[in-house]
Amino acid sequence: MPHDALAQELYAELCRIPLIDPHSHIDPHRPVARGLDDILGYHYYTELAHSAGMSQAPLAKEVSPRERVRAILGHVDRFDNTAQYGWFLEIARTFLGFEGDRVTAADCDWLCDAAERVFAQPDWEEQVFRRSNLESIFLTNEFDDPLTGFDTKRYVPCLRTDALVFQLDHPEVRQRLGKATGVEVGDVLSFRRAIQRLFQHFTEKGARACAISLPPWFYPRPMDEGWNTSGIETALRITEPRPVWPGRDVTAYAVFFLLAEHCREFKLPFDLMIGVNRRVYENGVYQGQDLFDQRISLFDYRELFNAFPEVTFCISVLSSGQNQELASYSWIFPNVVTSGHWWYSNIPVHIEHDLRARLQAVPKTKQLGYYSDAYKLEFVLPKFNMYRRILARVLADDFVRPGVYSAERALDFARLLLRENVRSIFRV
Amino acid sequence: MPHDALAQELYAELCRIPLIDPHSHIDPHRPVARGLDDILGYHYYTELAHSAGMSQAPLAKEVSPRERVRAILGHVDRFDNTAQYGWFLEIARTFLGFEGDRVTAADCDWLCDAAERVFAQPDWEEQVFRRSNLESIFLTNEFDDPLTGFDTKRYVPCLRTDALVFQLDHPEVRQRLGKATGVEVGDVLSFRRAIQRLFQHFTEKGARACAISLPPWFYPRPMDEGWNTSGIETALRITEPRPVWPGRDVTAYAVFFLLAEHCREFKLPFDLMIGVNRRVYENGVYQGQDLFDQRISLFDYRELFNAFPEVTFCISVLSSGQNQELASYSWIFPNVVTSGHWWYSNIPVHIEHDLRARLQAVPKTKQLGYYSDAYKLEFVLPKFNMYRRILARVLADDFVRPGVYSAERALDFARLLLRENVRSIFRV
Amino acid sequence: MPHDALAQELYAELCRIPLIDPHSHIDPHRPVARGLDDILGYHYYTELAHSAGMSQAPLAKEVSPRERVRAILGHVDRFDNTAQYGWFLEIARTFLGFEGDRVTAADCDWLCDAAERVFAQPDWEEQVFRRSNLESIFLTNEFDDPLTGFDTKRYVPCLRTDALVFQLDHPEVRQRLGKATGVEVGDVLSFRRAIQRLFQHFTEKGARACAISLPPWFYPRPMDEGWNTSGIETALRITEPRPVWPGRDVTAYAVFFLLAEHCREFKLPFDLMIGVNRRVYENGVYQGQDLFDQRISLFDYRELFNAFPEVTFCISVLSSGQNQELASYSWIFPNVVTSGHWWYSNIPVHIEHDLRARLQAVPKTKQLGYYSDAYKLEFVLPKFNMYRRILARVLADDFVRPGVYSAERALDFARLLLRENVRSIFRV
Repeated sequence: MPHDALAQELYAELCRIPLIDPHSHIDPHRPVARGLDDILGYHYYTELAHSAGMSQAPLAKEVSPRERVRAILGHVDRFDNTAQYGWFLEIARTFLGFEGDRVTAADCDWLCDAAERVFAQPDWEEQVFRRSNLESIFLTNEFDDPLTGFDTKRYVPCLRTDALVFQLDHPEVRQRLGKATGVEVGDVLSFRRAIQRLFQHFTEKGARACAISLPPWFYPRPMDEGWNTSGIETALRITEPRPVWPGRDVTAYAVFFLLAEHCREFKLPFDLMIGVNRRVYENGVYQGQDLFDQRISLFDYRELFNAFPEVTFCISVLSSGQNQELASYSWIFPNVVTSGHWWYSNIPVHIEHDLRARLQAVPKTKQLGYYSDAYKLEFVLPKFNMYRRILARVLADDFVRPGVYSAERALDFARLLLRENVRSIFRV
Repeated sequence: MPHDALAQELYAELCRIPLIDPHSHIDPHRPVARGLDDILGYHYYTELAHSAGMSQAPLAKEVSPRERVRAILGHVDRFDNTAQYGWFLEIARTFLGFEGDRVTAADCDWLCDAAERVFAQPDWEEQVFRRSNLESIFLTNEFDDPLTGFDTKRYVPCLRTDALVFQLDHPEVRQRLGKATGVEVGDVLSFRRAIQRLFQHFTEKGARACAISLPPWFYPRPMDEGWNTSGIETALRITEPRPVWPGRDVTAYAVFFLLAEHCREFKLPFDLMIGVNRRVYENGVYQGQDLFDQRISLFDYRELFNAFPEVTFCISVLSSGQNQELASYSWIFPNVVTSGHWWYSNIPVHIEHDLRARLQAVPKTKQLGYYSDAYKLEFVLPKFNMYRRILARVLADDFVRPGVYSAERALDFARLLLRENVRSIFRV
Repeated sequence: MPHDALAQELYAELCRIPLIDPHSHIDPHRPVARGLDDILGYHYYTELAHSAGMSQAPLAKEVSPRERVRAILGHVDRFDNTAQYGWFLEIARTFLGFEGDRVTAADCDWLCDAAERVFAQPDWEEQVFRRSNLESIFLTNEFDDPLTGFDTKRYVPCLRTDALVFQLDHPEVRQRLGKATGVEVGDVLSFRRAIQRLFQHFTEKGARACAISLPPWFYPRPMDEGWNTSGIETALRITEPRPVWPGRDVTAYAVFFLLAEHCREFKLPFDLMIGVNRRVYENGVYQGQDLFDQRISLFDYRELFNAFPEVTFCISVLSSGQNQELASYSWIFPNVVTSGHWWYSNIPVHIEHDLRARLQAVPKTKQLGYYSDAYKLEFVLPKFNMYRRILARVLADDFVRPGVYSAERALDFARLLLRENVRSIFRV
């Protein structure tokens, strides 16, 4: 809890605002954890344990979940200073009834037993929704996801497009595309038809966004249709994909622009998560290999923002340097909005800095406050709590105490950040 | 007002220091607003309203000023969280007697009527000077400004040189130069003579600085005279200017160095405002199209700082990353001083961070604390107040409470930042 | 002293932790100052005085120490706002018994007399160790240092390798190498043998680290042995070194990788101090000519970190942008640890920001909290005090008050930062 009285009051009120979480990796068919391994298997814990000295042996498939948990908890005293550990402690306390000050290796069995008991409750998913004050949550769906078998009002589909943009040279991706759309993809025209079908399918199923994560080497350029075509044609003919091939960037731009055109046509905002390099630490744990390069600029995206004034671009960045640009670009471009605090930036000191810049300089209707990025629903609560604590303090310090806003109006602002802007921007 | 007692006391004392504002865009022939449209027409409001959803229609010439104000105020509830809105609210309260907590569209007529009444007072200009505790203010004068018809002690001329450096290929610029100086500009020698005349004219009229804003692609290089010549010769022969032409950068460097030489000869500090790209948002409102690129470094300016040890360079930057460099370069180079908090950096969270770095690491005689960048005098007060509030808090937290300075010595420091360094650096 | 009670208590406790200082430039044969000139001759003071207007004349050899001190103190009223001045004031108060609020030129003789008296005490070195609560301190030893005549438990040797990597083309460097190792260096094989001997010599004498400072233009690349060889062979044949020569970067990479291989073999951590350009201000005072370029990324070091998983890289950076990367790279790579707050980043506002990022995101066993970088032992106390004050405040604000850690556990964390991690990482 924040230790100043005003921030505490604001925090308590913030917790009453029903959340719409605009970005996660939840599997709607398995939205909650089934055991503690589903919690501590989150890459934040495996990578911190590994970084602090744990070998990868406990992460092998054949290791039992409890032994994996024991191995990770065996290293937790090396990273119990981190914000990420804080999320776990809050899950243990809130959901498992853990009452200790800290979690150590000695708590392994107690925690695993508690998790098995608690997570096995038939209404566990409902309980998590209710206790997290969560109304609905966006998913990250591969382009060939049938989007069936779950409530798309609660689990809002979102078309993730990384494979189409960066792996069109993979025959396997094209086969999946053909299978998903019923279109034999052989040339640009059929590819475009397939993309059209994808957008139809997704929007009919209630998708509310198109999304992609973009590496530092990528940046959008203006293209004439011919160039567009040639890039895609080249990719479609490749049968032996390699990590890098001549024309890879041209194709990526071409497909990306095609997607932007469909976002315009289907009125879908386009989530751009900018700046992550994949496989930087080659021997890292699963999902713990990617890192950023601070030397990117939204200036490289100017052509895109100019070319698609009708498309709302929801931008996530990875550093405070990029955030200062983002706040400025969002203040100037009507179609650029700020989105959450992503990955390596999702640490209190950076959230605080980046949040203050946005609250002070970006129109309040153009800010998506936070998303959980969670793989299991249990993480929505501690991650949003971290954000709400910081938000409460910033509202107290920068708005209420200086007399900019009354407490009531500060809460109206927070409601936009936590809920109403998600509704208006994604038309939920 | 800051909410801690010490900061409040310091703030009150800071407000008693008579200001010399070392950079503005005031028109000395129309220094104050004539109606609310002159206030809300400031690009900060038109661009925020546009960014938040207002079309450009209300900004057309044929729209009446009051309808334009109404349109902007019609969107103010979407950006009343911003620091920029805060300046407007303070103007409304301080100068117009507005007593509400917030301004909304419903206040349009009241505010417009009040503005007409207040601004029409015959001594309004004097009142603004007095109530802002403003002693004098620097202008931004085009090179062919006759600098007549105003008090150059109060409105200090400053030679702005962007057109000479970046548009020498425009015949129209060369004609203006010829007309202003009486020199037929046809080759390097005559161009140099014309520059010489400009500096004579400006310094005779009391100019105290030369100034330019520089895009990220520009950086100074050392040049021998021959190369210098060829760049300028090329530009002087161009009759059909294009946005980019071969040799543009060479010419820009050549003219820029010529200006630096004249700064040395005429003992004028050179204000460098580094890092803005023009027309990034192509369909943005007037003056609301420019944005920065965080990927620049003062390292690129080392040759310049080394080549002109006799010229004081007053540097403004646009990001906290660049500010950390600026604080270090100013700590090392005797001829580099820090200057104000510019444009996208002129937001409390950035001012606070950048200011602390300067106060803690740069000799106190080498810091120009703040400038208003105002187009109308009414903005001097709220913008300096924003700075003074932050300065009061930083002095309280980083200097007085830790015992580094007594309150009295902290105020001496502030007097350097707000007034005395302007006098000594610009020889006012 | 910090002004909040909890931070004060923590600060007092932090001061009780015996320090192991993991990086300095102490000369073990002259570890303490002999007069005030040895204190104010530190480049921080000569460069600030020069930046604030002092000519270089008082720095000439023939000027008497007291007159040099008088000249520097004659400018101290222009930079008595800086953190660097704060270190001097603390030295004057703690070691010399100075009781004033501020130091001015008028204090010159009193201070010089006091310094002569105090520093002349036969046990002065012991006193400084004791009053600084310093247990041992790392040195920076040139590769041909015999490492004799001092207690290597107290003054821990460290192999500094800049000359080998960046000046192998200098015949004088190769001669020194030959003389130090007894190996006639004529080709790659003999060069490798010489390096091997250096590492043997240093580790036998108790060296605990290999170290280098790297300019922005340098970055490690993967290399096959042949390329490796050719770069070094080329360098070894050069008889007339020039600042830049074809293949300089190739050679630098080759030697650097050779050093990394020996770090692996001899189990020495490799201190990388990344990002400083030398001689940026060409006419600056001695050691006051170097500045950084914010545009570097640890992404360029990925090949190195991947290629040497067995070598611990202790990374120092120069800007908060780079620190945000460092915190993330250290969170992911097991062999990357954060190291101190270096040079232009060693200013409270940057320490505070960078420290918070590390404390919140990096495993606590992977952080080397601080080093003094001192040339004379008297600076250990004020520099570590600056760090401890900030650390106390951050621990209070981010850990104890929010309930993350009890005060006791916060102090355990601090003990890792100030002492235990040095012991475990460098195997002291």
